[in-house]
Amino acid sequence: MNGFRFSAASAQIRQDGRIDVALAVADHPCPVATRFTRNFVRAAPVTLCANRATKRVAQAVLVNSGCANACTGEAGLAATQVTTAAVAKELGIGAELVLPASTGVIGKLLPSDKLVSIVPKLVASLNIGSGADFAQAICTTDKFTKIAEAKVGSAGSVLGIAKGAGMIQPNVGPLDPTTELHATMLVFLFTDVAASAAALDAALEKAVSASFNAISVDGDTSTNDTVIAMASGASGRTPAAEELAQAFTKVCEELAEAMVSDGEGTSHVAELWVRGLATDESARTVARTIANSLLVKTAMCGQDPNWGRWLAAAGRAGVPFDPALAEIRVGGVTIVKNGLGVSDDAEKQAQAFMRAPRYVVELELGAGLGVARYFMCDLGHEYVNVNADYRS
Amino acid sequence: MNGFRFSAASAQIRQDGRIDVALAVADHPCPVATRFTRNFVRAAPVTLCANRATKRVAQAVLVNSGCANACTGEAGLAATQVTTAAVAKELGIGAELVLPASTGVIGKLLPSDKLVSIVPKLVASLNIGSGADFAQAICTTDKFTKIAEAKVGSAGSVLGIAKGAGMIQPNVGPLDPTTELHATMLVFLFTDVAASAAALDAALEKAVSASFNAISVDGDTSTNDTVIAMASGASGRTPAAEELAQAFTKVCEELAEAMVSDGEGTSHVAELWVRGLATDESARTVARTIANSLLVKTAMCGQDPNWGRWLAAAGRAGVPFDPALAEIRVGGVTIVKNGLGVSDDAEKQAQAFMRAPRYVVELELGAGLGVARYFMCDLGHEYVNVNADYRS
Repeated sequence: MNGFRFSAASAQIRQDGRIDVALAVADHPCPVATRFTRNFVRAAPVTLCANRATKRVAQAVLVNSGCANACTGEAGLAATQVTTAAVAKELGIGAELVLPASTGVIGKLLPSDKLVSIVPKLVASLNIGSGADFAQAICTTDKFTKIAEAKVGSAGSVLGIAKGAGMIQPNVGPLDPTTELHATMLVFLFTDVAASAAALDAALEKAVSASFNAISVDGDTSTNDTVIAMASGASGRTPAAEELAQAFTKVCEELAEAMVSDGEGTSHVAELWVRGLATDESARTVARTIANSLLVKTAMCGQDPNWGRWLAAAGRAGVPFDPALAEIRVGGVTIVKNGLGVSDDAEKQAQAFMRAPRYVVELELGAGLGVARYFMCDLGHEYVNVNADYRS
Repeated sequence: MNGFRFSAASAQIRQDGRIDVALAVADHPCPVATRFTRNFVRAAPVTLCANRATKRVAQAVLVNSGCANACTGEAGLAATQVTTAAVAKELGIGAELVLPASTGVIGKLLPSDKLVSIVPKLVASLNIGSGADFAQAICTTDKFTKIAEAKVGSAGSVLGIAKGAGMIQPNVGPLDPTTELHATMLVFLFTDVAASAAALDAALEKAVSASFNAISVDGDTSTNDTVIAMASGASGRTPAAEELAQAFTKVCEELAEAMVSDGEGTSHVAELWVRGLATDESARTVARTIANSLLVKTAMCGQDPNWGRWLAAAGRAGVPFDPALAEIRVGGVTIVKNGLGVSDDAEKQAQAFMRAPRYVVELELGAGLGVARYFMCDLGHEYVNVNADYRS
């Protein structure tokens, strides 16, 4: 992306020795917009990043995987200060221009000495590194890197890089101006258009609502969720607000769906449409409740169109509707009509769709015009494998 | 229990041929108190039972497993009417005195002909049947029957019979006077004391808050949850209100913990204490969020004192606290103090406790005097086995 350089290296923070530190540096200080977890338990890098981002200007992003540096108190904060300061010094810029983010195990102090010792190499690699290297270094349990790109009208383009496979459930809402909740994820948007921090913020708000706000892997929200958007202005062109919002939305939707597809232990992704509730927000509440139902998720794993579980989950979301009006379709096949199962044949057809890695499930609940789209995934043995022994 | 007779039989509703119909009959019409699921999707037996229970008098309870008769519309309601009418006729009592309950797969119509055909045998067996038979017949995925008994002061005693192993998360709150929410469970309390329906209702309310309202297996709430309490008055003695409440509470707590211990695929149960939030309700919200966190549940399965997950789950419950004040103990061993991990040694000691089938976890959050006790369980491969292929 014009105006940005990237690099990655191994600081031996991860036990497996893979690259675990990523750096992105803009050619000069840039307008920036951010979002952070609304979890009351926040990692040190979130605290420091949110603090620095209040100035709405930044030049570098320093990210590590393998250690969340969360629940590490004053020592954790100091470790993040030391590592970002080392990067700032090597780059010859102010430390307040370096935004940190971390992902990994909670409760483990960031080994700042290890990270500091590879900073010269990291900075020296900026001329040969790529966004792909950056994307690889921030992965934890991710099975693939998450990169998306889009044109911003004719003003330039945006590159999105993300990580996220577990502790994923966005739940947007204002806590204070700089801290809205986002999924268990790290997301970085780099654009070469010219845009003010306010313009970035407005575009990010729209993008996030349609994307990270509408997915769940496991319903858990991290201590480290961070979204950072920076505009280098290298293209020299300023997009219309709507163009920027559309580009951000396109990239964020693609990254969000990638996170669900890469959900820990996931074999199946459902694009869930919930229609016919009083408001869009009600529809989203129902969708989120279905998406996090263990019984729905295990039925998906079993490729079983056990629609009673979908309907029962919808019914416990606290949003009123008349089940006698409910209609459910899987892959376009209607399996429930007027609240009743249609036929064994219909369910067999639906079951065939559920063997696919990705399919569409639609609930029509007949209680209004509210609608929500949500991405969810199944829960199978591999999720247990990944998470029962994560630290050992 | 004095004043009640029990029987059970197989109506071949279950594919495995085990007994699947249970009947309890009082010697004469009794005062009754009930609670039902607050799910907006309610099974036909819930609708009919709630309707009949508004009269606060009943003489018989007819329960089947193997088929929830939920999402079955008018035909489902008719099936429940037909089967309860058959029992009433055989007993020579009014149909409105027979309360139905069902548990099993959603979306399958109750095969009323099968059930009706065994009614004569069911009624004839009342002289030889027992509460244990009743308890066996109502089980679905339960690995053991759930029976508890307690003295009601010196006025008599109460016998509690329950089933429940999945779709378990109580969430009490008034919907209308006859319909408060309870876990994915069926619970029957038979007492021989003399008590009005109002007295039963008051005792049930207290009992339920401390028991079913404070457990979760999987966070899912059923379409069929039903609690029925009946008093035969056979002892001829009327207990004090507090005696009845204590006896009901003792029995319900025992049954509630049994449900979590028998949670589908569960190997470990944690008695979770959350202290130090603004109110008891806030503490319960935090406890429930922890109890339903997939990352906490899988860490329990892995016997891993991964306290960051407990704290992160607490932090996303929407209840404010300062993580820097947090203390966490497992089996009495302090693993987190002032928001920081204590030592690897402490975690190793905690891990030893987590190998046990049941242990205590305590969170002190330092933000008030609110306290909650909650029973939760782990999530492992067996949960996936049970639920990914439940219908096949």
